[in-house]
Amino acid sequence: MEDLKKYIREIPDWPKPGISFKDITPLLKSRYAFNRAVDLMAHPFLEKEVDKVVCIEARGFILGAAVAYKLGAGIVPVRKKGKLPYRSIRASYQLEYGFDELELHEDAIMPGERILIVDDVLATGGTAAAVIELVRKSGGAIIGCSFLIELENLKGREKLSSVEVLSLMSY
Amino acid sequence: MEDLKKYIREIPDWPKPGISFKDITPLLKSRYAFNRAVDLMAHPFLEKEVDKVVCIEARGFILGAAVAYKLGAGIVPVRKKGKLPYRSIRASYQLEYGFDELELHEDAIMPGERILIVDDVLATGGTAAAVIELVRKSGGAIIGCSFLIELENLKGREKLSSVEVLSLMSY
Repeated sequence: MEDLKKYIREIPDWPKPGISFKDITPLLKSRYAFNRAVDLMAHPFLEKEVDKVVCIEARGFILGAAVAYKLGAGIVPVRKKGKLPYRSIRASYQLEYGFDELELHEDAIMPGERILIVDDVLATGGTAAAVIELVRKSGGAIIGCSFLIELENLKGREKLSSVEVLSLMSY
Repeated sequence: MEDLKKYIREIPDWPKPGISFKDITPLLKSRYAFNRAVDLMAHPFLEKEVDKVVCIEARGFILGAAVAYKLGAGIVPVRKKGKLPYRSIRASYQLEYGFDELELHEDAIMPGERILIVDDVLATGGTAAAVIELVRKSGGAIIGCSFLIELENLKGREKLSSVEVLSLMSY
């Protein structure tokens, strides 16, 4: 979907020097680009009987919720440690220096439910791998992972080799 | 919409003693309740030619994005200080002790665009009032504010008296 790339803005040296950040807000604010991106992220899963979309704080909430609405599925947020109000399970993921943790409500997913994971960017795959771990601990069946953007040089797809991974745009 | 209230879970003493938190995750994870809540939040604005939905980090992203998709509108995130990558404008809002700031990209809204503000809960109205300030600074025309839940005893609606305010459920 190369024509959607014109809605992605490169921000040099953000969040720190040497990183060129892919800003998706020009895509989100365009009614045409947002609607089209959500449809294209959802279409491969329309016949897959997705029960719930699991999405990752915070930008993942935006794409995940719209994809869930399109698919007629429920939506389940994965959040950073300490943000969810009910009993939760945790998985850790690696940061550049050290680790952080993601949480999922323990009653968010019932065994056997069909789960689609949605996030904005697939980079190193660390957070997505942690979400896969949480969904599997809950007994969910992962139907796939859908990303708006994939940063191919970071090889995140290799960390997610056990599931189907789709991305709309690659860099 | 009293029948949607069965999907709202009360969490006593969260995030701190004496607060009874309204947990919306049971509503979000139900395909039926989520779909219905989004439709009901969007329906009053179907004929209002909304250009963009402005939503507030982080739970507001979920409802805002689905309502925007339903309305065929774009989606614009308002975030806490330091999270947006591009040049932003700021507004402060009161916390229990002190202030915090919300940010909006300076190019997110064009003068005259028709804006719907969406968030999960209307409590004191402080954050919504700050978002109204940001939208007006950008030249946006606010069509209304749509909340899933309104905590009536906190009188947030009084802070938003200059715009139309709708909520699906009141406590």
